[in-house]
Amino acid sequence: MDLKKIWDNYETLIDKEVIVNGWIRNHRPQKEFGFIDFTDGTTFKHLQIVYNKDLADFEHITALKNGSAIKACGIIKKSEGKNQDIELVAKDINLLGDCPMDYPLQPKRHTKEFLRSIAYLRPRANLYQAIFRIRSVASMAIHEYFQNNGYVYFHAPIITASDCEGAGEMFQVTTLPLDKVKKIDYKDDFFGKKAGLTVSGQLQAETFAMAFSKVYTFGPTFRAENSNTKVHASEFWMIEPEIAFCDLNELMDIEEEFLKYVVREVLNKCSLELQFLDQFQEPGLIKKLEDLINSHFTRITHEEVISLLKKSDEKWEFPPNYGEDIAKEHEKYLTNYFNGPVFITNWPKDIKAFYMKQNDDGKTVAAVDLIVPNAGELMGGSQREEDYFKLKARMDELKMDEESMYWYLNLRRYGTCVHSGFGMGFERLLIYLTGVDNIRDVIAYPRTPGNCDF
Amino acid sequence: MDLKKIWDNYETLIDKEVIVNGWIRNHRPQKEFGFIDFTDGTTFKHLQIVYNKDLADFEHITALKNGSAIKACGIIKKSEGKNQDIELVAKDINLLGDCPMDYPLQPKRHTKEFLRSIAYLRPRANLYQAIFRIRSVASMAIHEYFQNNGYVYFHAPIITASDCEGAGEMFQVTTLPLDKVKKIDYKDDFFGKKAGLTVSGQLQAETFAMAFSKVYTFGPTFRAENSNTKVHASEFWMIEPEIAFCDLNELMDIEEEFLKYVVREVLNKCSLELQFLDQFQEPGLIKKLEDLINSHFTRITHEEVISLLKKSDEKWEFPPNYGEDIAKEHEKYLTNYFNGPVFITNWPKDIKAFYMKQNDDGKTVAAVDLIVPNAGELMGGSQREEDYFKLKARMDELKMDEESMYWYLNLRRYGTCVHSGFGMGFERLLIYLTGVDNIRDVIAYPRTPGNCDF
Repeated sequence: MDLKKIWDNYETLIDKEVIVNGWIRNHRPQKEFGFIDFTDGTTFKHLQIVYNKDLADFEHITALKNGSAIKACGIIKKSEGKNQDIELVAKDINLLGDCPMDYPLQPKRHTKEFLRSIAYLRPRANLYQAIFRIRSVASMAIHEYFQNNGYVYFHAPIITASDCEGAGEMFQVTTLPLDKVKKIDYKDDFFGKKAGLTVSGQLQAETFAMAFSKVYTFGPTFRAENSNTKVHASEFWMIEPEIAFCDLNELMDIEEEFLKYVVREVLNKCSLELQFLDQFQEPGLIKKLEDLINSHFTRITHEEVISLLKKSDEKWEFPPNYGEDIAKEHEKYLTNYFNGPVFITNWPKDIKAFYMKQNDDGKTVAAVDLIVPNAGELMGGSQREEDYFKLKARMDELKMDEESMYWYLNLRRYGTCVHSGFGMGFERLLIYLTGVDNIRDVIAYPRTPGNCDF
Repeated sequence: MDLKKIWDNYETLIDKEVIVNGWIRNHRPQKEFGFIDFTDGTTFKHLQIVYNKDLADFEHITALKNGSAIKACGIIKKSEGKNQDIELVAKDINLLGDCPMDYPLQPKRHTKEFLRSIAYLRPRANLYQAIFRIRSVASMAIHEYFQNNGYVYFHAPIITASDCEGAGEMFQVTTLPLDKVKKIDYKDDFFGKKAGLTVSGQLQAETFAMAFSKVYTFGPTFRAENSNTKVHASEFWMIEPEIAFCDLNELMDIEEEFLKYVVREVLNKCSLELQFLDQFQEPGLIKKLEDLINSHFTRITHEEVISLLKKSDEKWEFPPNYGEDIAKEHEKYLTNYFNGPVFITNWPKDIKAFYMKQNDDGKTVAAVDLIVPNAGELMGGSQREEDYFKLKARMDELKMDEESMYWYLNLRRYGTCVHSGFGMGFERLLIYLTGVDNIRDVIAYPRTPGNCDF
């Protein structure tokens, strides 16, 4: 029986016999009896197995080592210990898979750096049990939110010949025998042209929004940026909804509702995991998440933000300027000032992407960034430029390759409409949800410059 | 209001005023009135908008073209027509986005080949409305099945330095400036070594199954095979569950339950789409799917299969042989013979992957392929070799690079256990669910040799 089933129904199982399969996390054998800290990973809560020397193979059992796989049969009993409601009094314990003494994941404190080097074993550690179950639960909550609200899940292409952001550094994908070819000719390559890994599914998602009104992507995206920071990975998952007949204000409504839904689901379904993370990773984590779902999201323009920052008495490391991006210190100030998340709208067009709707002032675009206390920017969205001529003029200005983007421009010729969308880096959200501060700890097998292990 | 909401509640909406945003699929203006076949893509069912010359801008409205985006305000009325329960009697129709006469997607029959060439517009056509909504609904059903049964969703890495199947042809991923470098040195490449796109997340999923017991992947995988068939794409999505303490028989239980769940969900949630596909793509489609969920899945060994095939009176194009794979014609015979899906188990080890559990006979492995009427092979799974020495011997035999696979082998040293998993190509399932016969029609932007458009 799965541990999850046992813990979900333990009151009805008392004095009943159950069989469990799983692993020994910690074994404390004594002279006349022993305790096994046991889990099968189906729930965060372990089960204590108690055995005593009445068992025929008591000697063998006392020799069982941490990390071993076992099958245990016994009776569920109310526990006399303090912190556990039940334990399993063993009638029979069988070794399924041994584990030598050199097992790297002994039950003691390990550094996260060390655990990254054994990334194939670290999901067995409590911290990663918590993180990766939250990752799974949050994924599902994201799907639920969109599906419950009538969105169509759209699988954006991963290999692509177009570069959404223009600026994004792309990985190249090839089947040319690089060790042999003298001169590269992409006509000989697999797709007959230069191809790379997508940096965003947005442009393609827009084509589907023009057919289904409400769509979302949830898939991997890539950046070949050579940056070794705590928040950058070369491979990460993105959520990109795209909604027809939706303007910037309605987009913010959706962003707020969506984020609160996902956080609420994780609070409801991962309480044990969050308690653990609150205790060992980020004191106050649960309160932070509860505050978020109860908070009012402020809406303010970029210009108002700069004025506000300029008026403040803070000594800025980076002085705020109209027409420029804002810094981490500004974000922190703003979420403190408004005591909650802040939508910043109408950004200077020169620091934003070509596809964003140009406002009538000629200087700003209908973009919105959401900044969140203790997380900084969590989502970035915009109303899209739906006017063919304005979009084309902007692409001309930026000297973009319009020929390969004909289909994107054509969306503005064939039944164009007001539409908007946002993108959220899934791992950014996970850092926020789990309280760990390094993206390498929320991705099973992180890819960063120089690192492609496992 | 979304069309979906209108159709879900249309009886309560009669004589009420609603506003809709969407597109004109077909416009039939008459002298004194006109009909607009209208949809916003939120449901498969369109809405007829009726207008007459009492409207102030009647002349303008009659000039509205197919493909245009409009906003319509009007009263929901019981329709006098035969096949529709309601229609919208317009009070006001506004053009949001025009559509010129060269719009390629006029309301007439187009070939699928032509529609592939305008893949950015084809989701607006009924056929692709049906297909891509089923794709979305089936995706969600897959997540639901696993999440409801306690599985953890695992995001397998996309970029990888290891090659799961050995044989699979991999795309290479690089940031080397190929046009400039004279001699390739992977030490200079982004990851410091040769990297490619994953062909399967299974091996990494096993590491998570050893921590969470039940996990699944659902993500893109890649094959750089130069094959131009109806069922091969270079980029496709795979589902790969991996279950600890699960043997081959239990795996078959899971496969059957899983497949029936997904098919049932699609039957329940996509009845309009399936009716359309049943009518225009595969007559009998709905019955085929209903038969599947009511059918008994036969279980038979590969050896028994060959004996059965040899005994039959059929004239085989490919004579069946012990120790060899079976052909399409054999699969068809078997699903007919057993009148339903067939699990074929215990395959000759030489035609199967290195990680499969070696049976005691020394000749076969605990693999299982599921073949399904009118679909052929839909899933492939196996019990995994959990014995370190047997696995290592097999890898030696196949001259595999064990050094880079140390972590996979180590799973057999640190608390190994019986475990099993299967893989299902998502697009194979979609071909089965939709009745279309070409993988290019169930992928939004298919990637095949020479084709990486959009």
